[in-house]
Amino acid sequence: MGELTGADVAKHNSKDSCWVIVHGKAYDVTEFLPEHPGGQKIILKYAGKDATEEFEPIHPPDTLDKYLDASKHLGPVNMSTVESEEKVIDPEEAARQERIKNMPPLAACYNLLDFESVARQVMKKTSWAYYSSGADDEITMRENHNAFHKIWFRPRVLVDVEKVDFSTTMLGTKVSAPFYVTATALGKLGHPEGEVIFTRAARRHDVIQMIPTLASCSFDELVDAREGDQVQWLQLYVNKDRAITERIVRHAEARGCKGLFITVDAPQLGRREKDMRSKFADVGSSVQATGGDSVDRSQGAARAISSFIDPALSWKDIPWFRSITTMPIILKGVQRVDDVLRAVEAGVQGVVLSNHGGRQLDFAPSAIEVLAEVMPALRERGWQDRLEVYVDGGVRRATDIIKALCLGAKGVGIGRPFLYAMSAYGVDGVDRAMQLLKDEMEMGMRLIGATSIADLDPSLVDTRGLLAGHSAPVPSDSLGMHTYDPLQVPSFKAKL
Amino acid sequence: MGELTGADVAKHNSKDSCWVIVHGKAYDVTEFLPEHPGGQKIILKYAGKDATEEFEPIHPPDTLDKYLDASKHLGPVNMSTVESEEKVIDPEEAARQERIKNMPPLAACYNLLDFESVARQVMKKTSWAYYSSGADDEITMRENHNAFHKIWFRPRVLVDVEKVDFSTTMLGTKVSAPFYVTATALGKLGHPEGEVIFTRAARRHDVIQMIPTLASCSFDELVDAREGDQVQWLQLYVNKDRAITERIVRHAEARGCKGLFITVDAPQLGRREKDMRSKFADVGSSVQATGGDSVDRSQGAARAISSFIDPALSWKDIPWFRSITTMPIILKGVQRVDDVLRAVEAGVQGVVLSNHGGRQLDFAPSAIEVLAEVMPALRERGWQDRLEVYVDGGVRRATDIIKALCLGAKGVGIGRPFLYAMSAYGVDGVDRAMQLLKDEMEMGMRLIGATSIADLDPSLVDTRGLLAGHSAPVPSDSLGMHTYDPLQVPSFKAKL
Amino acid sequence: MGELTGADVAKHNSKDSCWVIVHGKAYDVTEFLPEHPGGQKIILKYAGKDATEEFEPIHPPDTLDKYLDASKHLGPVNMSTVESEEKVIDPEEAARQERIKNMPPLAACYNLLDFESVARQVMKKTSWAYYSSGADDEITMRENHNAFHKIWFRPRVLVDVEKVDFSTTMLGTKVSAPFYVTATALGKLGHPEGEVIFTRAARRHDVIQMIPTLASCSFDELVDAREGDQVQWLQLYVNKDRAITERIVRHAEARGCKGLFITVDAPQLGRREKDMRSKFADVGSSVQATGGDSVDRSQGAARAISSFIDPALSWKDIPWFRSITTMPIILKGVQRVDDVLRAVEAGVQGVVLSNHGGRQLDFAPSAIEVLAEVMPALRERGWQDRLEVYVDGGVRRATDIIKALCLGAKGVGIGRPFLYAMSAYGVDGVDRAMQLLKDEMEMGMRLIGATSIADLDPSLVDTRGLLAGHSAPVPSDSLGMHTYDPLQVPSFKAKL
Amino acid sequence: MGELTGADVAKHNSKDSCWVIVHGKAYDVTEFLPEHPGGQKIILKYAGKDATEEFEPIHPPDTLDKYLDASKHLGPVNMSTVESEEKVIDPEEAARQERIKNMPPLAACYNLLDFESVARQVMKKTSWAYYSSGADDEITMRENHNAFHKIWFRPRVLVDVEKVDFSTTMLGTKVSAPFYVTATALGKLGHPEGEVIFTRAARRHDVIQMIPTLASCSFDELVDAREGDQVQWLQLYVNKDRAITERIVRHAEARGCKGLFITVDAPQLGRREKDMRSKFADVGSSVQATGGDSVDRSQGAARAISSFIDPALSWKDIPWFRSITTMPIILKGVQRVDDVLRAVEAGVQGVVLSNHGGRQLDFAPSAIEVLAEVMPALRERGWQDRLEVYVDGGVRRATDIIKALCLGAKGVGIGRPFLYAMSAYGVDGVDRAMQLLKDEMEMGMRLIGATSIADLDPSLVDTRGLLAGHSAPVPSDSLGMHTYDPLQVPSFKAKL
Repeated sequence: MGELTGADVAKHNSKDSCWVIVHGKAYDVTEFLPEHPGGQKIILKYAGKDATEEFEPIHPPDTLDKYLDASKHLGPVNMSTVESEEKVIDPEEAARQERIKNMPPLAACYNLLDFESVARQVMKKTSWAYYSSGADDEITMRENHNAFHKIWFRPRVLVDVEKVDFSTTMLGTKVSAPFYVTATALGKLGHPEGEVIFTRAARRHDVIQMIPTLASCSFDELVDAREGDQVQWLQLYVNKDRAITERIVRHAEARGCKGLFITVDAPQLGRREKDMRSKFADVGSSVQATGGDSVDRSQGAARAISSFIDPALSWKDIPWFRSITTMPIILKGVQRVDDVLRAVEAGVQGVVLSNHGGRQLDFAPSAIEVLAEVMPALRERGWQDRLEVYVDGGVRRATDIIKALCLGAKGVGIGRPFLYAMSAYGVDGVDRAMQLLKDEMEMGMRLIGATSIADLDPSLVDTRGLLAGHSAPVPSDSLGMHTYDPLQVPSFKAKL
Repeated sequence: MGELTGADVAKHNSKDSCWVIVHGKAYDVTEFLPEHPGGQKIILKYAGKDATEEFEPIHPPDTLDKYLDASKHLGPVNMSTVESEEKVIDPEEAARQERIKNMPPLAACYNLLDFESVARQVMKKTSWAYYSSGADDEITMRENHNAFHKIWFRPRVLVDVEKVDFSTTMLGTKVSAPFYVTATALGKLGHPEGEVIFTRAARRHDVIQMIPTLASCSFDELVDAREGDQVQWLQLYVNKDRAITERIVRHAEARGCKGLFITVDAPQLGRREKDMRSKFADVGSSVQATGGDSVDRSQGAARAISSFIDPALSWKDIPWFRSITTMPIILKGVQRVDDVLRAVEAGVQGVVLSNHGGRQLDFAPSAIEVLAEVMPALRERGWQDRLEVYVDGGVRRATDIIKALCLGAKGVGIGRPFLYAMSAYGVDGVDRAMQLLKDEMEMGMRLIGATSIADLDPSLVDTRGLLAGHSAPVPSDSLGMHTYDPLQVPSFKAKL
Repeated sequence: MGELTGADVAKHNSKDSCWVIVHGKAYDVTEFLPEHPGGQKIILKYAGKDATEEFEPIHPPDTLDKYLDASKHLGPVNMSTVESEEKVIDPEEAARQERIKNMPPLAACYNLLDFESVARQVMKKTSWAYYSSGADDEITMRENHNAFHKIWFRPRVLVDVEKVDFSTTMLGTKVSAPFYVTATALGKLGHPEGEVIFTRAARRHDVIQMIPTLASCSFDELVDAREGDQVQWLQLYVNKDRAITERIVRHAEARGCKGLFITVDAPQLGRREKDMRSKFADVGSSVQATGGDSVDRSQGAARAISSFIDPALSWKDIPWFRSITTMPIILKGVQRVDDVLRAVEAGVQGVVLSNHGGRQLDFAPSAIEVLAEVMPALRERGWQDRLEVYVDGGVRRATDIIKALCLGAKGVGIGRPFLYAMSAYGVDGVDRAMQLLKDEMEMGMRLIGATSIADLDPSLVDTRGLLAGHSAPVPSDSLGMHTYDPLQVPSFKAKL
Repeated sequence: MGELTGADVAKHNSKDSCWVIVHGKAYDVTEFLPEHPGGQKIILKYAGKDATEEFEPIHPPDTLDKYLDASKHLGPVNMSTVESEEKVIDPEEAARQERIKNMPPLAACYNLLDFESVARQVMKKTSWAYYSSGADDEITMRENHNAFHKIWFRPRVLVDVEKVDFSTTMLGTKVSAPFYVTATALGKLGHPEGEVIFTRAARRHDVIQMIPTLASCSFDELVDAREGDQVQWLQLYVNKDRAITERIVRHAEARGCKGLFITVDAPQLGRREKDMRSKFADVGSSVQATGGDSVDRSQGAARAISSFIDPALSWKDIPWFRSITTMPIILKGVQRVDDVLRAVEAGVQGVVLSNHGGRQLDFAPSAIEVLAEVMPALRERGWQDRLEVYVDGGVRRATDIIKALCLGAKGVGIGRPFLYAMSAYGVDGVDRAMQLLKDEMEMGMRLIGATSIADLDPSLVDTRGLLAGHSAPVPSDSLGMHTYDPLQVPSFKAKL
């Protein structure tokens, strides 16, 4: 079969016959259209054309091989014959390129939030929207960090803190610091190399990377990038087809993964309106919604990747997981005390208290708040050593990590901050982000009067702020606020 | 009697003899002037002229027949002889028309608040003011939604939520979702077709519509618009003249209404200053208030419709209502525990905990807060099944609905959000609003770990935030706030 | 002695010999200079000149007769010979005059805050500063209204509220509504006629006026303005010279005052920085502070009037007051429970819980908060009928009044709102302000389900919000707030 | 050896041979470069040049003698031969000079915050950053003042407060007011004369000055500036080399210091990002961070001075301190109850509850909050007289001081406010700041009903606001806030 030409492909530009080019090869996706998790519309936009640029960041390289029957692989296209899309010069994109040119130097980032503020300016809007969005009103998403503000320290003084050691172990692995890179999807939206960057940074800092099911890089790429005795875990979305799931799990174990983190808080992927609105602006804005079919099906990147998750997953499945792997099993996304107790009874090795970064159910509690309820319940039963408890969500400062450890967490997962560091500055950004956290850890340990992780206990924190639940003050008095004439500082004689 | 001419009518343009034209017919309203609930001023503005445009949205079509003696019906006017008012081009109205042209497509609305934000821009200012206003400082109005923010979830995981069913029954009627369209007045202020739009949308979504006493459409129009086995309820303002009230109730039962919701929180209609100010700007601004008669009597749309409500209505009336109808009787607007207990003793079938959308008494508590006190009191007495408890006010998200159901509500009423959806996008808007709520419901049920309404119980919510009452922090320290130099994120080299 | 000329007076223009003209008469104030409560600087500004305009609003007309020896009264001046000051055209004053021309009509004021917002724009800056200022950071001043926001209603429904009567009695006087005009100083700063306006408005509305010691009008002017059986009270600052105090009290009783309100919260008048800064801008700005005498002594209107108050006043003085008058004695400014108990023991007829409108001690509690602690303590001892308890401070809405009455107050004092209504609109303004309060009262009584003052009891309010004391949330996270990208509503296609 | 020329020095302008001129003398700092606490970069900027201006404010005059071997002192330079740096006209500096010209007069400062607001405008940016910065998100720094807002008064009335005396004793020294000047570093950043200004102002006001280890003036300069029986204390950072520490302590005692305040909350100096960012902007901005060595080592003034502090300092060292001095020993920076109890057991004379002005550990509690827990614990054990308890941090008003004293503090330390007063207005500024505090003290004592420090007890304050711990309300609802149409005040006819 000879090479196809651009013109050959261009003929198949409709619902009835839809071909697309990806990485120089043509594919017939006509029959696949209705099954596409991201909706037909986005594919049809590229019908008869080269879709590589759009395809790339949200699909691992082995996607087409895995999910599209070989008969639909139409072979290479002579790319010189493909008419290159005349790119409209988008003023917003031009402004973004200008901002990239003027980016602050990496050394001007002094904390994890700094990376986020830079990333917000230099990332593509749709990518930013995907990473930064949360469920509904994003109240849980923001509460995740906010909740740490309700916990204050009770620092000890006159402790010899010349030597401070904050290394610890997680599921038996010795790590240099009590945090790990948690699983986040679609890394290539932020950086062309994707999650492999985390593999490298985790190696440099001797911390664990959790490999996401929905990585932009393929699982094997990420494992191949491992060096020495570096440890990785696998985050798992459980597929309806348990055979697929079993294959994934066994493969991960075979390739050396040291922990299986089963996501239990995502029977369905959350609605994230910031993401949906951004996507809509991109694809849908020219389409006037009219008449009966007014519902737009392209609901942002978050929804596009959600079809492979089984909503029927339940406690009944746990024994089966134990039967197919010897990796420690950890339930990721537990959110209430009795589910933690049940996890102990189910014999798993750990839980991650998490609300999925505030991306699933708005008004789900923050992990740190749940932790403060969980640990006393475990201690009461003498069960505190029967499983390891992790938390993720909202961690931005080493003080957050120290608070979690004081309350009994074994470690904390960090996701978005590393995504932002990567999106803005690549591997050096993630490297610096980790280093900043470690600098803060050392400082925080010293100032709280602790020389090792073992010193961190509940007596060092004041958690009364969590006990009263969630407050929302009386709405403000518009007229009064407007009418009140606030005090002024002394005025300079001329305008400042 | 021959057709009247515009000139004939134009002569009667004063307090002493006041004729107006409505829908092509002339009426002598001289004697009616002092009785007009909306005040004389607004009628006198149209003395001798065509008042149709002003009359239309706030009076059901059968108003003149019902309330003006036949002798005052002067017959048809030859409209070609009526001088058409030269409309001043109002720059604000021109701007509004421009906004309407540029309205976001319906598909860009992702939640109920989106409709409100669009409606605010495209509605007439006076109509917006009528719908959006609340009592006094509008603190209760805002607290209604705010109070939901004090309630957080305790989601269960690893529940098989593949199939989720959130249908339920209300007063014996099976409905597809636990919400209903509650009664709101003057629908034609938002859309020329008025409340019949809700009838259609409720049909499409298999939910119940509560017909308002003060609808812009007549009761019969709304009943006539019913299809199939569609169910409607009647909201009732009790007239001083009980004979009128009896006639209304018997008629409603005869026409098939399945529930009688007696409003008990409005012995007098609330002062709503946003509405008053908007009306004033419209009618009163040219009139300098001077001397003795400085009190403006035209107090906005809310006050205009308030004369038909009996402030003497009391518990003593309940047996009489039971004697004139077999419809279930529900008291709408109950606001404290002991009144709910008394309602049980009075033998009614239900209560709606409500503060009338924050439009009556400022600092009345939100329904959801009262619910959290009511249900334990009922359960303590074993009375929880002796009546159905509904709530309305502030519901904007399915998570709000789920919270109410967890706490024991049978269903929730939604008013303003559907008004805004209708005002901005007509029946398609209401349709989409309902669909969005259902999408959110399905999502929320899954993520909280519930497969049916029966699964929703108090263990799934954390209501500690309600227990401490209403907080209002110490007023801020103006000098300190002004003087504090907040931290900065890294700066880009050129201006962003 | 012949009439003096302007030139005669003009010679005495220094500290060594200082004459001033007031209302066409000359006075030698040389010896009085160091005793002037407002400091020498302000008098010296007018040395040898006509000081009437500055003198007028802050001194009652009988001041010079009372406080300056007859020998210093130099007699009439031929005013045609007095050089009139060339007034510099002050751009700020011109702008104010422009605003006065464009004032909203009185009918556009729908609540008490509306008057304040108008007054702020049309009053002289220094007068506004005097009325509107509070102690230190003005936190107590704002808390006074803020505290009402922590109290919510528990309204009763299905009560026959056709007839609502909110008349009551205060110290034996029947009044139409449970509020009175409390004492406020320097009324002529707001309106040239001064406090006599309150006398008239109080008469129109059948409420009581409390006559201030520091009124701009003289005591007798205010009593003379009384009509019919109108009732007035006297507010008393106790002079160091008890003979003066006795004379004032006996005179007030002789002239028919029905209550003696002894101010107990002002042993020294508070520092009010807004007032000081405004005064400074007026008088002091041209004077560079240099060297040793850098302390400016002209500390605003508040300090100017403070010299007549005895800081030694104590419980020991109470029997003496009982010995010189048969008027009921009420202690104004009590701020803690045990002082109220002591007041009962001291045999006085009442207390006003008050922090002096937030003008004395910052972080003094609001009267309404103290009331919520006082009444249970009185009831516990069965003392609730042994004295009448009033509150003032922060009352802006009838709902505030109703809350106070539910908690056990006999009535509430209102000060600043009436000052603002007077300053903006004169007696009609105060009239309307009172009418608005009454309209709100009627509405509020109906909606809470009360037909008379006797119906108002603690079961109608939820005061849990007061129990936790004063909250001040964790300071906000600047970087996080800056970096968070808030959700957007749908955007219109063109700019709005 | 003859005088050096500018050209001689200029040759040594690199890492390999680095000479600098300070106060007309040359120094060879080549070997010292890697040891410089402030990093090499800042010295290299001046290699071969005159560094006096940069050196001056952050090094006491005896620094070079103390820390640089005599062999490296190269002798005087003929300054006429030194090329004067062409100063680039910095627009920001020009604007600052303009602001200095237009500074408000000192008399326009009415409270301590006013000085801060002026200082912020007239100080060099880097100096302001050093003084005003705090740890991490500066939440503890702001909480320090914020916490006082949770404490309210319960004022007594009818107390004879004619004479008010707020003098007290601290460690046996009689002082005129219950505050002292606490130790703050690098005074010459704010004023060329440095901390000697505090010595003079403290003398004028008869309060104690605590001499900082890290003063810009040398210890002896500050002691020499003492007059009469003026009392000073020494604040001590403990050096790793205890011989140095012993020498410092013995010298201080010999020179008459009356108290030894050992800093225990700074085993490592805090990261202060505002300071780091400001420094970075100054020194580092032109250096693009690249590749491996991307970590900038010049981390602001705070880090530059941190190398002399021993992180191994512990309770074991206390007896040694007792052995080398007879001065009372006070631990400065204690932050929890059990450490105070331990301090009693260790036999020290006092503690300062402090979090180092929020400059060390973010989320360390405010001193006032710790005080409210400490005193009851001491009283419970009958230990309240076994040591003196001081607090510092966030004091801005006399009401803050009174609150601390009511809760049991012996006195309060004030730092930044005096720095700001000095930076803006020199010794007159500090003088006025102290006078304002005293005026406020007198006022506050009167209004709370206390005539002496002994009258201040816990019954005068309401501390319930502290009991619930730290609240952080639910994050706001962006869409709702945006969509809500707030009430408007009446509008003027023309624009204001």
